[in-house]
Amino acid sequence: MEMWLGEAQIKDAVMTYKVKETLVTKKTPYQELAIVDTYALGRMLLLDGIVQTSIEDEYVYHEMIAHIPLFTHPNPKKVLVVGGGDGGSIREILKHPSVEKAVLCEIDQVVIDECKRYLPEISCALDDERCEIFIGDGIKYVHEHKNEFDVIIVDSTDPFGAAEGLFGGSFYKEISECLTEDGIFVAQTESPFYLPEVVKRVYNDAKAVFPVTKLFMAGIPTYPSGYWSFTVGSKKLDPEYAEIDNKYDIENLKYYNKRLHKASFVLPQFIEKLTRDGK
Amino acid sequence: MEMWLGEAQIKDAVMTYKVKETLVTKKTPYQELAIVDTYALGRMLLLDGIVQTSIEDEYVYHEMIAHIPLFTHPNPKKVLVVGGGDGGSIREILKHPSVEKAVLCEIDQVVIDECKRYLPEISCALDDERCEIFIGDGIKYVHEHKNEFDVIIVDSTDPFGAAEGLFGGSFYKEISECLTEDGIFVAQTESPFYLPEVVKRVYNDAKAVFPVTKLFMAGIPTYPSGYWSFTVGSKKLDPEYAEIDNKYDIENLKYYNKRLHKASFVLPQFIEKLTRDGK
Repeated sequence: MEMWLGEAQIKDAVMTYKVKETLVTKKTPYQELAIVDTYALGRMLLLDGIVQTSIEDEYVYHEMIAHIPLFTHPNPKKVLVVGGGDGGSIREILKHPSVEKAVLCEIDQVVIDECKRYLPEISCALDDERCEIFIGDGIKYVHEHKNEFDVIIVDSTDPFGAAEGLFGGSFYKEISECLTEDGIFVAQTESPFYLPEVVKRVYNDAKAVFPVTKLFMAGIPTYPSGYWSFTVGSKKLDPEYAEIDNKYDIENLKYYNKRLHKASFVLPQFIEKLTRDGK
Repeated sequence: MEMWLGEAQIKDAVMTYKVKETLVTKKTPYQELAIVDTYALGRMLLLDGIVQTSIEDEYVYHEMIAHIPLFTHPNPKKVLVVGGGDGGSIREILKHPSVEKAVLCEIDQVVIDECKRYLPEISCALDDERCEIFIGDGIKYVHEHKNEFDVIIVDSTDPFGAAEGLFGGSFYKEISECLTEDGIFVAQTESPFYLPEVVKRVYNDAKAVFPVTKLFMAGIPTYPSGYWSFTVGSKKLDPEYAEIDNKYDIENLKYYNKRLHKASFVLPQFIEKLTRDGK
């Protein structure tokens, strides 16, 4: 018998993966969690039927969401990740020698536990002594910490259901207050091809709060359309023109490099248009 | 009853599309052709079960394969397309005012006929007076025309079966001889994520023939992984550092722009590595 997994995000264009083994399926207090081993992309984490990360391509997402803001900031010491219970963002953050503390604020303990068990390649840094795990609501955590973090990474699920509050102007305002005065924030912000209206709304919401707002792109096979947007909001530093050339290098990265850092902000016409049309 | 189409290129990671209507399926002398209307991406052309182009995202592929070499060349007059029977490359080529003649050399008349009938948005320029259609073998055509074209675009199917001869050193040598002395060639060269060995082999084969060889990338939702490579071989001109800023603009493009032209040559680490490791 052949088992196939269908990814649920785009209803008329469904990516399917041949399944080797289903390792765990579980109803948590917040969502349905599954970790499945596939022939094409190895083990995958799914939340509410949507692929969050896979062993074979997770490096693209985690390197780009972490290294773009961390190389942009001249001396990032305290970093907050909202969501990101798989631990991939923490793993990349801790590759920066300046980082003294990386807080993971994840609402769902089960995500952390199951990723530690079944995705050790991704979750491996969660036990690092510089990582502090806080189980709870990201919005509340951000509200209660002012002027504290140099970098905030919103590593959330999609802007429907549980994570909806992690997208939009009121949360970005709280994030801005949680950041230090030269702080920078980044969030994953969906596919401009399939969800242009989401990309546009999020960009405009961030722009209303941050003096510098930019989109960058990365090629991520497991996400719908394969070409994914991230939004950066920054109080002072422009991530596209950051002075990164003389900064330290990180060895053995598989996607990010300093030339790509800048090039990833150069947008195709149809995406640039989403950032130009106003509301 | 729901009809779903499964894309056949990567066997354990199959993209599926909900089908509105099957417009034509036909066995031609060279391949199985189908044109299918899908809910997510509109009409699609399939050859031997593999999606070649869709109404919703065809602009990415056709703009990038045409405008990168045509903006790189200072004054392209004669352009050859090998394959490309859907006409999308010809449509983009003819947007350049310097082009006097664009030859389409397509082996399969049926592809042209069915695309004219069912994909007029893509095939619309095939009747332009500057377009000359030659039905026949691309390898033979290139062999019989020396020192004639400023730009050659290999707009082929994948390097398996019918189009296999359009990839590799002996064909690239013929292409080099078919080009004028400052000529430039480009080919679609698959997904570095799913087929890294193909990307590497093609790059090295081109590099053995052309003084300048470069890869560039584009985000194409209908192709496996969504992040696609093109290889450029050039006798003199470097497409990454071409003097394009003062060239004319083309209005209403949806993907290509001059900043993106240069940025698309900046490669992620794992792809750059494919171009560095030698044979």
